[in-house]
Amino acid sequence: MAISEKVRSALDGASWVRRMFEQGEELKKLYGEENVYDFSLGNPNLEPPASLKKALKALADQPIAGMHRYMPNNGYVETRKAIAQFLEEESGLPFEEKHVVMTVGAAGGLNVVFKALLDDGDEVIVPSPYFMEFKFYIENSGGQIRLVETHEDFSLDLKEIEKALGKKTKAVLINSPNNPTGVVYSKESLKALGALLTEKSRQLGKTIYLITDEAYRRIVFDRIPLPIAFQYYPHTLRVTSHSKDLSLPGERIGYVAVNPLCEGVDELMAAIVFANRTLGFVNAPALMQRLVAPLQRNSINIKEYEEKRDLFYQALTSYGYQLVKPEGAFYLFPKAMIQDDVAFVKELQSKRILTVPGRGFGKPGYFRIAYAVERSTIEKALPGFKEVAEKYRAGGR
Amino acid sequence: MAISEKVRSALDGASWVRRMFEQGEELKKLYGEENVYDFSLGNPNLEPPASLKKALKALADQPIAGMHRYMPNNGYVETRKAIAQFLEEESGLPFEEKHVVMTVGAAGGLNVVFKALLDDGDEVIVPSPYFMEFKFYIENSGGQIRLVETHEDFSLDLKEIEKALGKKTKAVLINSPNNPTGVVYSKESLKALGALLTEKSRQLGKTIYLITDEAYRRIVFDRIPLPIAFQYYPHTLRVTSHSKDLSLPGERIGYVAVNPLCEGVDELMAAIVFANRTLGFVNAPALMQRLVAPLQRNSINIKEYEEKRDLFYQALTSYGYQLVKPEGAFYLFPKAMIQDDVAFVKELQSKRILTVPGRGFGKPGYFRIAYAVERSTIEKALPGFKEVAEKYRAGGR
Repeated sequence: MAISEKVRSALDGASWVRRMFEQGEELKKLYGEENVYDFSLGNPNLEPPASLKKALKALADQPIAGMHRYMPNNGYVETRKAIAQFLEEESGLPFEEKHVVMTVGAAGGLNVVFKALLDDGDEVIVPSPYFMEFKFYIENSGGQIRLVETHEDFSLDLKEIEKALGKKTKAVLINSPNNPTGVVYSKESLKALGALLTEKSRQLGKTIYLITDEAYRRIVFDRIPLPIAFQYYPHTLRVTSHSKDLSLPGERIGYVAVNPLCEGVDELMAAIVFANRTLGFVNAPALMQRLVAPLQRNSINIKEYEEKRDLFYQALTSYGYQLVKPEGAFYLFPKAMIQDDVAFVKELQSKRILTVPGRGFGKPGYFRIAYAVERSTIEKALPGFKEVAEKYRAGGR
Repeated sequence: MAISEKVRSALDGASWVRRMFEQGEELKKLYGEENVYDFSLGNPNLEPPASLKKALKALADQPIAGMHRYMPNNGYVETRKAIAQFLEEESGLPFEEKHVVMTVGAAGGLNVVFKALLDDGDEVIVPSPYFMEFKFYIENSGGQIRLVETHEDFSLDLKEIEKALGKKTKAVLINSPNNPTGVVYSKESLKALGALLTEKSRQLGKTIYLITDEAYRRIVFDRIPLPIAFQYYPHTLRVTSHSKDLSLPGERIGYVAVNPLCEGVDELMAAIVFANRTLGFVNAPALMQRLVAPLQRNSINIKEYEEKRDLFYQALTSYGYQLVKPEGAFYLFPKAMIQDDVAFVKELQSKRILTVPGRGFGKPGYFRIAYAVERSTIEKALPGFKEVAEKYRAGGR
């Protein structure tokens, strides 16, 4: 065999987002791009804030000598200082620049964190439904993913997490606001999770880490403040990016920040920097590091996503879809109206609507809608959602 | 233990470039940055070509809608087309955009290629002296590095490679122009290597891949044309970047190109794209992909590096240093004048000269000079090189 066996079997396996994408491309060829309503990918349609565009223009007009050269593998000290200052304000914890490593987006950051932490066979607990790439990221460093169920409303089920915690557990990975559900974990649940991990770490005589994927952290609605996980557990690593809050997903800029109170924090930072270098990232893109530094308190207009959520949620519920009202990110995760989520997604495809079956997120019987698209796309797609609902409501589930 | 055992033992191991860097920082604090002559890192001092700066300014002045969004994981089709066209011209082979994947630099590209190819225990043959990061890149995907000696002048020793080729061999990795030696492998040696790999692949009943790290490919001197490895072996993967030819190392932009005649090329490309995605790179930085596309035939002024090579090489040989005259890259790799290269490098440090011992590249008894620095830095350092040479020439080796 030519390519890696591991990669071949992964390629053969189900990547539903990918499959839907390809079927969508077919539909677009057939009907024209404007007549296909693509909710399959979480690719933000909003442009970056004006402040970022202005900063890019200023830097292009007056380049700084050496601004494209290598810098230390953890990133520019100025950028890390700006982020540390923001984190200190936000959390009240004594963050310094040494607690921050700039990364190639959150996906890069997660790979780096797993490489730094995991040995062969170590388990990482992940509440499901979940972003399926996590499995690859964990396995890349020899770890194993261990899925745990969430409650019916996709909130954390602490009992399930407690049952899964054991000798092999190295970390718990949570993602809030969540992809695919849009759920934001409450302050109370993070507090309870922190208490559980503290107690279990003590019992097991080892530190269990909490890794928080906060890629959607600024996209929260209804003026809900996003709880700060750092405040409820010392051994917490935040992995995030500016892909969504500054709409820069193609530029691959994010960071890992480790709680200053984390056990062995200095050694952990050294391990993270080592992983960043040797996994081939080397450093986060230089130009973007410079641009995002002063924008830690900025973001695209979150209200736009909130309005789309409202429009979509109200319409779908009025058609009879059952779904949890998302408090963040730009996803909806309704129940499919028949048990077979793939068949249901195909039914939506017949209305030129592209979504992803729930089994692509470890949750058959549901489907994901990514609504980081033009409002008009949502409006044009709604009749199709309605027709499908009418067909199946009549039949009953 | 908190962090990964694998990472801890790697951190404890010798990273000589890093150690020298840290000792250099100490010296700089003591004597002032301008009084320390730092040849420890290959961090290009030249600015990118004017054409690149102009293109950045144009894009910042008139942003294209969606230019920071995700694109397909292999990169923009326009960029890949531009590169394929260039490769076709250069090699005469039928390159298409599907044979190119944009990557986060060459380090990212190498990790992606190893992930796509290697299963646990697979061997990758690497001629030594070598860039030590290769070991990590190969091990990240479960592979093993197998070092083979080169000739006295650091040219490829085909007999050594032949001896190492066997059932476990998945690939041979070469780096030309070479870091740390500056040597450029001749057309004849690549032809002979191609013939050897063809014969051995036939004997072993499997395809052995040739991976060429061509990060320094445009930095060749004396009007030597860089031989095109693609022309001498079909199962060749080129990994390269624009870190050196366009002086963009901090921006992390490069590509992997696979010979269109490579066995199973379509599946291999799918595996490479999968690895690019799941290792967390996702895609090469969007803005840079756009900027480098039209600059495939451009580069910084190579003559500047050639003049520095001439200055340095002539001076060192006149002081009695023994070294191979490099035909490319921006490194010199002289013999240390005493057996202990670390002691010799310390002696140079006493003259405020920073270099890296040869054992940092698998070759004790030598040391590496990275001369991508200001000409004045070289000029000011030469007396120190001379004094050390005089001390040891008198003593004899």
